[in-house]
Amino acid sequence: MVRIAEIVGADNLLVGDAVSERFVHIWKTHIPLAAVAVVTPTSVEQVSAVMRYCHQTGLSVVVHGGLTNMVGSTETSGIELVISMEKMNRILELDVNSKTAFVEAGVILEHLQEEVKKVGLMFPVTFGAKGSAQVGGMIATNAGGLRVFRYGMTRQWVLGLEVVMSDGTVISGLKKLVKDNSGLDLKQLFIGSEGVLGIITRAVLRLSPASGGRHTAFVALEDFGQVLVFLRSMELTLGGALTAFELIWKDTYQRMCGVLKGGGIPLAFGYPLYVLLEISTSTGGTSPNLLEQLLEKYLEEGIVLDAAVASSESEQNRFWRIREDVDHLVSQCTFDQHFDVSLPIADIGDYVDGIRRNLDAEPGVDTYFVYGHMADGNIHVVVSKKYDSVDLIERVNNLIYSPLTNYGGSISAEHGIGTHKKAYLPYCRSKEELDLMRRLKGALDPKGILNPGKII
Amino acid sequence: MVRIAEIVGADNLLVGDAVSERFVHIWKTHIPLAAVAVVTPTSVEQVSAVMRYCHQTGLSVVVHGGLTNMVGSTETSGIELVISMEKMNRILELDVNSKTAFVEAGVILEHLQEEVKKVGLMFPVTFGAKGSAQVGGMIATNAGGLRVFRYGMTRQWVLGLEVVMSDGTVISGLKKLVKDNSGLDLKQLFIGSEGVLGIITRAVLRLSPASGGRHTAFVALEDFGQVLVFLRSMELTLGGALTAFELIWKDTYQRMCGVLKGGGIPLAFGYPLYVLLEISTSTGGTSPNLLEQLLEKYLEEGIVLDAAVASSESEQNRFWRIREDVDHLVSQCTFDQHFDVSLPIADIGDYVDGIRRNLDAEPGVDTYFVYGHMADGNIHVVVSKKYDSVDLIERVNNLIYSPLTNYGGSISAEHGIGTHKKAYLPYCRSKEELDLMRRLKGALDPKGILNPGKII
Ligand SMILES: Cc1cc2nc3c(=O)[nH]c(=O)nc-3n(C[C@H](O)[C@H](O)[C@H](O)COP(=O)(O)OP(=O)(O)OC[C@H]3O[C@@H](n4cnc5c(N)ncnc54)[C@H](O)[C@@H]3O)c2cc1C
Ligand SMILES: Cc1cc2nc3c(=O)[nH]c(=O)nc-3n(C[C@H](O)[C@H](O)[C@H](O)COP(=O)(O)OP(=O)(O)OC[C@H]3O[C@@H](n4cnc5c(N)ncnc54)[C@H](O)[C@@H]3O)c2cc1C
Repeated sequence: MVRIAEIVGADNLLVGDAVSERFVHIWKTHIPLAAVAVVTPTSVEQVSAVMRYCHQTGLSVVVHGGLTNMVGSTETSGIELVISMEKMNRILELDVNSKTAFVEAGVILEHLQEEVKKVGLMFPVTFGAKGSAQVGGMIATNAGGLRVFRYGMTRQWVLGLEVVMSDGTVISGLKKLVKDNSGLDLKQLFIGSEGVLGIITRAVLRLSPASGGRHTAFVALEDFGQVLVFLRSMELTLGGALTAFELIWKDTYQRMCGVLKGGGIPLAFGYPLYVLLEISTSTGGTSPNLLEQLLEKYLEEGIVLDAAVASSESEQNRFWRIREDVDHLVSQCTFDQHFDVSLPIADIGDYVDGIRRNLDAEPGVDTYFVYGHMADGNIHVVVSKKYDSVDLIERVNNLIYSPLTNYGGSISAEHGIGTHKKAYLPYCRSKEELDLMRRLKGALDPKGILNPGKII
Repeated sequence: MVRIAEIVGADNLLVGDAVSERFVHIWKTHIPLAAVAVVTPTSVEQVSAVMRYCHQTGLSVVVHGGLTNMVGSTETSGIELVISMEKMNRILELDVNSKTAFVEAGVILEHLQEEVKKVGLMFPVTFGAKGSAQVGGMIATNAGGLRVFRYGMTRQWVLGLEVVMSDGTVISGLKKLVKDNSGLDLKQLFIGSEGVLGIITRAVLRLSPASGGRHTAFVALEDFGQVLVFLRSMELTLGGALTAFELIWKDTYQRMCGVLKGGGIPLAFGYPLYVLLEISTSTGGTSPNLLEQLLEKYLEEGIVLDAAVASSESEQNRFWRIREDVDHLVSQCTFDQHFDVSLPIADIGDYVDGIRRNLDAEPGVDTYFVYGHMADGNIHVVVSKKYDSVDLIERVNNLIYSPLTNYGGSISAEHGIGTHKKAYLPYCRSKEELDLMRRLKGALDPKGILNPGKII
């Protein structure tokens, strides 16, 4: 520790009680941190020097960003050094002409979004934890969120990365380039690697022109087949202007609407499926009642059963609140488990029918909610249980995950693997894939000191 | 060879004259191929068995796709086995609901585009060589092309990959998933790796709803500063509806217009800079004269000097022909060299001023043309020379490439490195980056038998 104190300065080294006052992750369970020490480096050079020391001495390292992950990927066993990026929190440049932001890894996502907005641009990746999540964590988890259908995941918005390798080597690829085929695109390796291959210290992010207005509607449909027909038809008509398409199952819709406390529910309860959709009007000329005209046509054709178009911004916000206020849903659950799976869009209906049967047949399950980013093939399931036991947790996990293999699905659309989902990874990744992940890990971190035990 | 003939069958093994009748690459120079043999496998199993054999015996392999690369990345020295993917050319599935195509690597890009169009969808990556380039080659080079500003590079359209590793191991990740954060995203490694890390045998590609109509205009501007102002302002107003923004320098515009043989030149010659721009009308309601109204405003404000909006589809095609018919430009050159560099958008004007001074001062240079995908930071330079010599070629390369280092640019926006640009890679990639590329190569291909000598 003396050597580390020399590198980062005493102000940037926490030991003893100062360590256990911190957390492993901050979502719901504030588990106290156990670690040999916490360092809060203030520069790339410090991170590099710390890693050189750890590599020499074999000290393991866990990187802490905003601690908002939900898969145990910042967990420690007590013998690791925690490197927390919180002090590397400067926005170094906003270049409006090149539409890029050059930032340190510890910048809070919401802070970045606000600063970017001030210069008339937008950083489109956003999600519920934006007030705590850091840019480095967002990149290390390839975060998705609420705008993936239109804007893609984090990967699409990273132009350049600076990464400190396990031996302290700095890989600097901080370019502001949208196109760069000059050899292997190394940054791709680190995006979504949950801290097991390198430490992200700085990044160049791409920015987007601000989005314009939007029109929002709720629609009710008979069955999943009709939802597919409706989605295809909307996309044919609207192309890229269709920017959200959120599917909600019957009972889930009813529970979600509870957040409005009775006032202004968009559509009556009891329809089999609901879709919350949005079209973007950022194109300068989209006619304001286009959405209404379109939905009338679908109503006449019997493709949709009922529809409500939001007529004001406050109504739009109310519609979105139904879908977004997951806390409201979760507050009605006990011993809840959360799932974030993906599968081919065409198979969603079938898959959900199957897991509903599974969950209905499991006596330990109290109730469950199903909804998701349909157009991205991403389905969320929240399971509320009657009691908690390791056995039951595992049983429920298997009920949700095991059917994915046949559909070519994924046990984690967005949230990553960490420690919590590691055991289930073989449901969606082959032995050869897992071997290759290990081979990459071995090549980049031969001593296995970076976030040991995570993913692989 | 006996063993290989057993694996693939005699029909799929070419030796002797049948080898030298084939080519190293097919663009402009049809250099005869020198190789110990050419195999044309018909299945993943055959590719795997061939690689197992090569790994055991240490036989080097060069994969041949459509041979349209322009950087020598399919070159051989005579001692390699060529694996040509031409017989693995089946489209295995088009899933309209999931909007995916499952294809073998040898499918010709244009064939894929046509079949996808028949089911009402679009595969958006497209470029001049589409009639010969294969899907596998497109992925192995992370090809860009004419629609990157709107749709991104190939990387964005690859959902799943099957890859045969150097030892014959098959890494199968053929998922139809838009979102998948279940561990390391292995496919990213192989996209753009020019055949040095593995052989792509099959792929799942993402498809897009067909694009709608478009409005096209040519605009003349005073200087690069005004082009930046114009681009920013257009993006603020139009958001994602601005789908092309091609910048052409004065003399280049004049030469390009030669392709019209005098008829219907959009704007007079002599302005410093020209922009060809397009807005998309796929959003159901973009008003047809929005573009005209907008440009009138910019004319009044003095931001643009002159403007012409195409009034019919045939006029639109004529406008685009000016920009796209690069053959016309090249046919006016002698001993031509072609460059495809990228740099931060804001620095393009400065960089081009600099290389113009460099080229003007080089006695061996006859003339040159500059144009590019401005909104992607991608600039093309075609240099016509008075004579050819290794010395002059290297001098011109250095004139174009060396200034990129200071701007944080790339010597290859799209075309890759192959053998031709290898020597110049240090202008844009650090020693640490090149070392890491070598480390990855060593980990995935320890015997160095895959496309030896390319990139690194
Ligand atoms: C309420 C809520 C809503 C959420 N919604 C979404 C959502 O819609 N979509 C979605 O994708 N995710 C969502 N998440 C989870 C999401 O993955 C995280 O919120 C975020 O991306 C992680 O950022 P963080 O800074 O908190 O990282 P942490 O939780 O601190 O770390 C996550 C992982 O990244 C590593 N890491 C962190 N920083 C670095 C670095 N600089 N270099 C290398 N490795 C690093 C850590 O070691 C760890 O493995 C949500 C979380 C919450 C609590
Ligand atoms: C007229 C013309 C216009 C062009 N325009 C553009 C453009 O606008 N944008 C752009 O990006 N490019 C452009 N290109 C170049 C572009 O990179 C190639 O056209 C294309 O992407 C390569 O595909 P191919 O099948 O011909 O590959 P090849 O030339 O056969 O091979 C290219 C590389 O990929 C490797 N490879 C091929 N197939 C596989 C496989 N199955 N598995 C592993 N490795 C493989 C080869 O070993 C080689 O290293 C253009 C080329 C021409 C001739």
